[in-house]
Amino acid sequence: MIVARTAADLRAALAGPRRSGRVGLVPTMGALHDGHLSLVHAARAQNDTVVMTIFVNPTQFGEAADLAAYPRTEKADLALAAQAGVDVVFAPSVAEIYPAGFATTVSVAGPITETLEGAVRGRSHFDGVATVVSKLLLAALPDAAYFGAKDAQQVVVIRRMVADLGIPVRIEVCPTARDADGLALSSRNARLSAAERERAVAVPRALDAVTRAVDAGEREPSRAAAAGLAVLAAAGLEAEYLALVHPDTLEPVVAVAPPMLAALAVRVGETRLIDNVLLDAASSPLADSGGSE
Amino acid sequence: MIVARTAADLRAALAGPRRSGRVGLVPTMGALHDGHLSLVHAARAQNDTVVMTIFVNPTQFGEAADLAAYPRTEKADLALAAQAGVDVVFAPSVAEIYPAGFATTVSVAGPITETLEGAVRGRSHFDGVATVVSKLLLAALPDAAYFGAKDAQQVVVIRRMVADLGIPVRIEVCPTARDADGLALSSRNARLSAAERERAVAVPRALDAVTRAVDAGEREPSRAAAAGLAVLAAAGLEAEYLALVHPDTLEPVVAVAPPMLAALAVRVGETRLIDNVLLDAASSPLADSGGSE
Repeated sequence: MIVARTAADLRAALAGPRRSGRVGLVPTMGALHDGHLSLVHAARAQNDTVVMTIFVNPTQFGEAADLAAYPRTEKADLALAAQAGVDVVFAPSVAEIYPAGFATTVSVAGPITETLEGAVRGRSHFDGVATVVSKLLLAALPDAAYFGAKDAQQVVVIRRMVADLGIPVRIEVCPTARDADGLALSSRNARLSAAERERAVAVPRALDAVTRAVDAGEREPSRAAAAGLAVLAAAGLEAEYLALVHPDTLEPVVAVAPPMLAALAVRVGETRLIDNVLLDAASSPLADSGGSE
Repeated sequence: MIVARTAADLRAALAGPRRSGRVGLVPTMGALHDGHLSLVHAARAQNDTVVMTIFVNPTQFGEAADLAAYPRTEKADLALAAQAGVDVVFAPSVAEIYPAGFATTVSVAGPITETLEGAVRGRSHFDGVATVVSKLLLAALPDAAYFGAKDAQQVVVIRRMVADLGIPVRIEVCPTARDADGLALSSRNARLSAAERERAVAVPRALDAVTRAVDAGEREPSRAAAAGLAVLAAAGLEAEYLALVHPDTLEPVVAVAPPMLAALAVRVGETRLIDNVLLDAASSPLADSGGSE
């Protein structure tokens, strides 16, 4: 497995593979878990060469403390990547991605960046995401890039950006990987205490409650959401948001009708968790949203 | 010569040529003149396939009247392009470039977009330029793209954007093409009345006066600029700006020392003209800035 530290080295490593076959890209911020590895497996199955990027992007963090606390485990990440069949890792420094004089921002306007995470974390969060993802895509120029359904809004924003700028890449979305009790895998889960980890199971259960309310015929979005909020409240948790939105526009639905995305964010102790479930015509409890497009 | 109306058709037309050789891109807003054709000649000399884009980009026009008045001469443009050896023209509609739901902006921050044209035309001008050029570059994925030195600030902004995002293209700058009396060729010149055209020669002469003042030892930027302003005033023209700036940072020079860019904008009647001259160690009157990088 090649580890490239610069975009130039990455391009050099991919020049040959690109001529002879397909290249798949898995962008990550490291601290790899089985969710990331499921993206690698999907990329592995569809491509001849698999590239993983590992970069904790400072511009998408609102709080300096959140950035500082983000887990960094490169040595273990490289071992896991090699084991999963990654061919090339691109693990650049911050100075490689944002050298002195860097001045360009890729920005997606409108409801898809203003709502949910955009409303809580601020517009600059998705500016940071869109800018770094465009850079990573242009550095690797893959045939396809693989993202997890857990970050549903991020996927909507990246799809919009890729389509708008015409970046020649296919965006693939893979189902959210979950622990046995339903908690979505996240690098942030490592920060949960044992007691917090127990309470965190209320997150997927809240989404399950929303799904069951809809399946039971609830047609009022606020009442379907209330079913989820009640589950959180019972665990002593208060959602930053729990919203039923259209999965493409992310605008609130005025009446419960699939397809819909139920998305929530909540702090468990100091740790911020997000999760979502796609409610489509064939929805079922804890259905993944991997097939949304 | 192939005329592609969609990015998909453009990509299809370039798939073969890209495999077998180099692709050069000449972005234009049409209304072709010898300045554009000199870009084609440069692209022709360095590439196996030459692509020209013809697109009057609405998002870089501040005033609706300016956009409406911009000359559109596609039939003549296509004939000139074919004659000059262009292989593929990409002439998309506004809806092809900005379909419904388009929401992405590429924005370059800092002095290079805030000064000169940015100060007069507003920040959105260069947002429009950076966004459309990134789209055109990503649609054609050329080895090199060719721009005229007349739009010196545009070149600085595009170089910054290309470097920051890592768009895999070489930016080539060609000397400003001029009429016999020194007036820089511009699609806007067609709007000048005969009397205005006579007065417009004061524009290159003003830059010539700045150059001569510097060559004569003037070391005070405001006095060097004053020499140019006097030439304009004698023709009844008042500059929107006439500035001596660093050619890369576009920040005002505090003392006259090469390399410097003398850049000006002026309205002659209703028509806005810009021009510039690079003053480097080997500066001479009306030297072109094609060799600036």
